[in-house]
Amino acid sequence: MFKARITVTLKNGVLDPQGKAIEKSLGALGFDGVGSVRQGKVFDVELDTKDGLKAAKDLEAMCEKLLANTVIEDYHVDVL
Amino acid sequence: MFKARITVTLKNGVLDPQGKAIEKSLGALGFDGVGSVRQGKVFDVELDTKDGLKAAKDLEAMCEKLLANTVIEDYHVDVL
Repeated sequence: MFKARITVTLKNGVLDPQGKAIEKSLGALGFDGVGSVRQGKVFDVELDTKDGLKAAKDLEAMCEKLLANTVIEDYHVDVL
Repeated sequence: MFKARITVTLKNGVLDPQGKAIEKSLGALGFDGVGSVRQGKVFDVELDTKDGLKAAKDLEAMCEKLLANTVIEDYHVDVL
C-alpha cells in the first residue's frame, strides 16, 4: 500500500482572494509583519497496489485529471 | 523574512465528505485501488521579522486562533 500527499497550490501571479482575506484577518487579530498568505489544498491518498511505478503514474494522472486545475494551479506529489 | 507552510488536516475519525466524493470520482475515472482520500488545507505564510522565536510563536498562535479548528483539525507548521 502506498500513502501519498498531494499538495495543490495556486501558480505565482494568480490572484488568491481567500489568501488576501486571511492576511487581513491576521492583521486584525494583531499579528504584525504578515507579508503574504496563499492558500492551497492537500490530498492524502492511499493506494492499494504493490507496484510503485504504477502508483506514481496514477497519482500524476489523478492530479492532471481531477485534483488540480493545471491552468492556474501547480501540484506536487510526495510518496510517504 | 520567514516563509512557512502550515498544513491543516482533519483529525482521524472526523468524517470527510469532500474526501469521500473525490474517492468516488477517482473510481469513476477508472483509477482502481484507491483506498481512501482525505482533504486538507495548506497556507503559505510570509512573515517580515528577523526573530525566529517570535515567528514560530506567531505561527502557532495563528493556527490556534484562525487557521485551524482544533476541535476537529490538526495542524503542522514547517518553516521553509
